[in-house]
Amino acid sequence: MYKAQINVSLRRSILDPQGKATHHALSQLGFDDINHVRIGKSIEIQIEADTEAAAELIARNACEKLLANPVTEDFEIEIVAG
Amino acid sequence: MYKAQINVSLRRSILDPQGKATHHALSQLGFDDINHVRIGKSIEIQIEADTEAAAELIARNACEKLLANPVTEDFEIEIVAG
Repeated sequence: MYKAQINVSLRRSILDPQGKATHHALSQLGFDDINHVRIGKSIEIQIEADTEAAAELIARNACEKLLANPVTEDFEIEIVAG
Repeated sequence: MYKAQINVSLRRSILDPQGKATHHALSQLGFDDINHVRIGKSIEIQIEADTEAAAELIARNACEKLLANPVTEDFEIEIVAG
């Protein structure tokens, strides 16, 4: 059993309105030292697999087929022993 | 300049309908080896600060005041040099 921690983020070239709105809200609260905010998804999945490589392959397939939008998003996978 | 990578996740005791729906969708696609999914937010902020400790303090304050819901969510902060 492995745990995969997946970060799905908007590509740099894609406008991030949620991040912009959050940045604005932080400014209103007085956080003047925060000058850039981007918001993505953090997905944790548990995978039944015999090896770490097999678990990563399953996680990568899941990202490509469902979890990330291949046009607008990038993803990073980190596998840890469950 | 520092970059803070913040993971905001629902507490274990809180039901995660988005994760459940994603798990169901993965099952429908044939991902039978994935048996648990939880979905949170991944927030990246850039902070103007002199030290890593100061940057972490700002990030922690931002989480407590805006980015995370103190009743239902936990957060983790990782500071990297920008």
